[in-house]
Amino acid sequence: MNEKTKFALRGLKWFRWVLVPALVVILLTRATPALAAESGPDPVLRGLNTVWVLVTAFLVFWMQAGFAFVEAGLTRAKNTTNILFKNLIDFVFATLAFWLIGYAFMFGNSAGGVIGTTGFLVSPSGAADVAGVPLLAFWLFQLVFAGTAATIVSGAMAERTKFSAYLLYSFFISAIIYPISGHWIWGGGWLAGLNLGAGFKDFAGSTVVHSVGGWLALIGAVILGPRIGRFGADGKPKAIPGHSISMAVLGVFILWLGWFGFNPGSQLAADGPNADIISLVAVNTNLAAAAGGLIAMILTWLFVTKKPDLPASLNGVLAGLVAITAPCAFVTPAAAIAIGAVGGVVVVYGTLLLEKLKIDDPVGAVPVHLMNGIWGTLAVGVFATENGVSGLITGSADQLLVEAIGVLAVGVWCLLTGGILFMTIKAVNGLRVTREEELQGLDLHEHGTQAYPADAVAG
Amino acid sequence: MNEKTKFALRGLKWFRWVLVPALVVILLTRATPALAAESGPDPVLRGLNTVWVLVTAFLVFWMQAGFAFVEAGLTRAKNTTNILFKNLIDFVFATLAFWLIGYAFMFGNSAGGVIGTTGFLVSPSGAADVAGVPLLAFWLFQLVFAGTAATIVSGAMAERTKFSAYLLYSFFISAIIYPISGHWIWGGGWLAGLNLGAGFKDFAGSTVVHSVGGWLALIGAVILGPRIGRFGADGKPKAIPGHSISMAVLGVFILWLGWFGFNPGSQLAADGPNADIISLVAVNTNLAAAAGGLIAMILTWLFVTKKPDLPASLNGVLAGLVAITAPCAFVTPAAAIAIGAVGGVVVVYGTLLLEKLKIDDPVGAVPVHLMNGIWGTLAVGVFATENGVSGLITGSADQLLVEAIGVLAVGVWCLLTGGILFMTIKAVNGLRVTREEELQGLDLHEHGTQAYPADAVAG
Amino acid sequence: MNEKTKFALRGLKWFRWVLVPALVVILLTRATPALAAESGPDPVLRGLNTVWVLVTAFLVFWMQAGFAFVEAGLTRAKNTTNILFKNLIDFVFATLAFWLIGYAFMFGNSAGGVIGTTGFLVSPSGAADVAGVPLLAFWLFQLVFAGTAATIVSGAMAERTKFSAYLLYSFFISAIIYPISGHWIWGGGWLAGLNLGAGFKDFAGSTVVHSVGGWLALIGAVILGPRIGRFGADGKPKAIPGHSISMAVLGVFILWLGWFGFNPGSQLAADGPNADIISLVAVNTNLAAAAGGLIAMILTWLFVTKKPDLPASLNGVLAGLVAITAPCAFVTPAAAIAIGAVGGVVVVYGTLLLEKLKIDDPVGAVPVHLMNGIWGTLAVGVFATENGVSGLITGSADQLLVEAIGVLAVGVWCLLTGGILFMTIKAVNGLRVTREEELQGLDLHEHGTQAYPADAVAG
Repeated sequence: MNEKTKFALRGLKWFRWVLVPALVVILLTRATPALAAESGPDPVLRGLNTVWVLVTAFLVFWMQAGFAFVEAGLTRAKNTTNILFKNLIDFVFATLAFWLIGYAFMFGNSAGGVIGTTGFLVSPSGAADVAGVPLLAFWLFQLVFAGTAATIVSGAMAERTKFSAYLLYSFFISAIIYPISGHWIWGGGWLAGLNLGAGFKDFAGSTVVHSVGGWLALIGAVILGPRIGRFGADGKPKAIPGHSISMAVLGVFILWLGWFGFNPGSQLAADGPNADIISLVAVNTNLAAAAGGLIAMILTWLFVTKKPDLPASLNGVLAGLVAITAPCAFVTPAAAIAIGAVGGVVVVYGTLLLEKLKIDDPVGAVPVHLMNGIWGTLAVGVFATENGVSGLITGSADQLLVEAIGVLAVGVWCLLTGGILFMTIKAVNGLRVTREEELQGLDLHEHGTQAYPADAVAG
Repeated sequence: MNEKTKFALRGLKWFRWVLVPALVVILLTRATPALAAESGPDPVLRGLNTVWVLVTAFLVFWMQAGFAFVEAGLTRAKNTTNILFKNLIDFVFATLAFWLIGYAFMFGNSAGGVIGTTGFLVSPSGAADVAGVPLLAFWLFQLVFAGTAATIVSGAMAERTKFSAYLLYSFFISAIIYPISGHWIWGGGWLAGLNLGAGFKDFAGSTVVHSVGGWLALIGAVILGPRIGRFGADGKPKAIPGHSISMAVLGVFILWLGWFGFNPGSQLAADGPNADIISLVAVNTNLAAAAGGLIAMILTWLFVTKKPDLPASLNGVLAGLVAITAPCAFVTPAAAIAIGAVGGVVVVYGTLLLEKLKIDDPVGAVPVHLMNGIWGTLAVGVFATENGVSGLITGSADQLLVEAIGVLAVGVWCLLTGGILFMTIKAVNGLRVTREEELQGLDLHEHGTQAYPADAVAG
Repeated sequence: MNEKTKFALRGLKWFRWVLVPALVVILLTRATPALAAESGPDPVLRGLNTVWVLVTAFLVFWMQAGFAFVEAGLTRAKNTTNILFKNLIDFVFATLAFWLIGYAFMFGNSAGGVIGTTGFLVSPSGAADVAGVPLLAFWLFQLVFAGTAATIVSGAMAERTKFSAYLLYSFFISAIIYPISGHWIWGGGWLAGLNLGAGFKDFAGSTVVHSVGGWLALIGAVILGPRIGRFGADGKPKAIPGHSISMAVLGVFILWLGWFGFNPGSQLAADGPNADIISLVAVNTNLAAAAGGLIAMILTWLFVTKKPDLPASLNGVLAGLVAITAPCAFVTPAAAIAIGAVGGVVVVYGTLLLEKLKIDDPVGAVPVHLMNGIWGTLAVGVFATENGVSGLITGSADQLLVEAIGVLAVGVWCLLTGGILFMTIKAVNGLRVTREEELQGLDLHEHGTQAYPADAVAG
């Protein structure tokens, strides 16, 4: 037995430290998968809604691949392994963190409207249905949303963040930051209960998911500072193109597809009038995406790069998708086009603004998810029809005010906790790789590998 | 504020010209998303069918990514941004064009069996269900089909068409050409009403979708002329291999998956006997794809390249899929294998024929979509069982005649309108890039970028 | 007419030899797609379950693309066309082989518990429902499982197997080996009937699908021998990195998504208590994937490569997925985490073990599918709750014994038939390419092409 083998065997011993706590957890959750009796609703109806929730959850899971490919495509080959790894592992962390505590903080019985307190180590044993579907179907749907919020951050902080730092903040975002503000809005917390003539509305998460990811992306990018070479000595910005537009396009197509799960799935039901709502939501989602892509293409063509610009158009599509996420169930198709079109404007000028401020966001996560998350949430106040069924552009001042309060509250929460989180990691673990590592690439230094080794590519 | 910023700000002003018309449109469509009452069918049944239609529509949307990757993989890296951009933006255009006028032309109340006249700016307000599902679910399903027809053309005209020309014809195809011939067949028009002992049958669109795309691809490729270097001075064809077989394979897998939405989804319902039909359609679709791929591999192996040829086999799979699209709900599994196998023959010899005629179709769109669209439509006349439920190869002469009439009518329509469209664009805007642009690549000239910049790839 | 054309025309003549047998088959199966009457169950319920089975079957089909990309990404560019082609064509063969005889051997009326004997050339004519859904829906679901078993083998035997040999064994696996052992367990055969205090349980195929593929991968890799350069003259292993980690990551995301069809779909129903089971299965599947990925990352980081290793983590995810496949419907979420975590240990140390034994498995198919297939099957005996609804870790010694018998029986069957199959092919056709072909790449020699031709990549 050589040295390497001996050393490797230590791993098996070490694994006891995983196995023993795991067994403890299992015993703690001595819950049985007792299947809920067919009480209450028609079993076929319950089955239909479960199928809808599960299939749309699968589509939202698929968005993880979309984020991975958009981010990898828009960054350099020397950091490809690193960014793909982050996008894989953050969903691993989100899954386990949400199971341990995240779901409980978000959807448990509320402590003063601030945080949930029940539902740790989720288990189907004796669980009541949620929203007419089995608890675990609802849980999976919420988990893939939590995963989305966490993964947004990786793009803005790409090409310079330590892998270990990423693991740390990825865990805290999925386990604590996202679930708590989520609790305020979707978990029965204080924002959900707020009523100033109108209640806060965010149908599928322009604020709950995208703005949260976007705020954390922003504060992270600011604390990290720009990549070497992104701004010249004279302060002039210098574009750093990504290594594969093909991967970025694949990512956007995946995200567009996934959004058909994200938005229509959020209704959590498909029968009767729900069928009308999910159809409206699907159509609105698609119209806004198209309008965002079109306007971003036209604006950059006429006023920015003077050519039809594919990365800008891709972000335009994503901008439209983020913007329509909050209002998709409350507005008409015509309004969805308007919301998406404004999203396209926001993303083009938001990108220029960030550059002006010398904030380096390699993939445009802040203009896409934060700025359009805000725009989409406010758009509920502008375009929402009364009761979701009558009138048009009734969007009252009341509604707009409540939406603004929600945007603000979530912003303060994220900047505060995100600031503390990133500063603490910076102090304790370090947040950024060394200059040498950044120049040579994170793949080589962090993972001892290359995404496309010359030997293997040459044959 | 520097020059660049000032200039960019003009874009915001310019955007008024988008916003104002958008608001006008919104006011015009002061329609409210009034949700249809639960009249008529069982709400659970309606929900089930809506879920089926939406999920299969999502799969058909996903085919856009499939086309993008097949076309990009089979062409050169210097044109990758351009072809991907076209495949993204044609769905953007299809979405907005279909919303504005396309859907109305295709499914509105018929004016003399020629064109629809109602349903512009589609809105759910007070809309009756279509085929047992909410109007908007039906609308989305039809939109993704329109997007498919439009995107087929880009492959045959790849690597030499101006981006601006592509935008123009992409719009006209989705808005006018596709919807009008579609109206004749699926919108209650004259072909649907024709009865010469049998009515014209095209279950999921071998003719309505694929032939239309294929005819336009053919006339476009002819008017454009071949790529520089495709045929030598001596007239001998010279293969121009694509830059990534991996992308092409991914594209074909995506399309195969998407076809499970395209064909089975076209039943628009899943209960009772519909469950039998969608199961039959899914199985037939898969069998034909396999048979087409197998025969194309064997034929090229034995008689053309003398080696098992992957691009030919990929097109064989697609040929089988296109061919089974019209007859999939009317034929037995054994017949589906025969139809797919003949599709494999058609695509291999069709490709050789096109080369003989010195028509340059970089990805084989014409053999796949046009020739097999025709074959699949005629196959209804050969293999369809009577009433779809009894007998076999009852395919009557009557049926075959009606299918041939439909094929011919759609061919004349597409060649005529396509010819006018492409010639007009050629005269007004120009259709083809310059020789220099073609040699250096469309990415650089049309978009000022590269798909895989050397700097980013090297690290 | 030149020589080439003349030669090609011979193909058309040759095609008679396909067409004539095809017509004979059609006449033999003069079955009509007679649609089952709406007898028995509620038509909406039947529709719901059909939609569930079809949609999950589509997801499992999509796994073919996942395997293709994992395998292509983890091998060298000079063999990319070859490995992608194999992954495409094995599904073509699986489709036709399963239609001809595979389905009949697996699910036909049992001859002594050993093999099925009815259901050749499947046809919907007068067919009774299976498991509450139309025969053809059930058939498609089973076909995509057969395709999965076949495709696993290609990874372990990559970069050195003759294409013609691959076609041969791919056919025999889908047509004979997989269906017969499958019959024992899922087709009502002897293992299904075995009762030693408990019956053999394999919910979605850790043994039926993954171990079968894994055993055949093992025996194939052993008979082939390692790739040139995989072990030095001194016997020391030398890693041969793949050409694109991006493709491998895409493949794993596709497989993870597809597994949401593989496992939850295996319930074949979604109403009432089935809704609880499919929700539990989906959650368990995801938790095990995450735990497997996490543990594999930690173990390699601490004890093997000393860095967070992406390929190992990808295989960790797949290991968790394979391991949870048998027990997913019988265990609690906490147990799913434990099962996945142990899967991560198994894959890391299994990979080292194979290397120790000088067996060359380029993508890790044996540790992932065989070792974790075995572990997952045994885990049913360790973690299964009684009746699937009460208790925890009740996993009795009885159950464990029965699981072990099943594992053993399938292992003996696969090693025996696989050994005969590979040795026969070796003798008759040759199994491995020549040294020169292997060094220059299979793409060039087997297919006369390159995956990424320099000319096309350079522009």
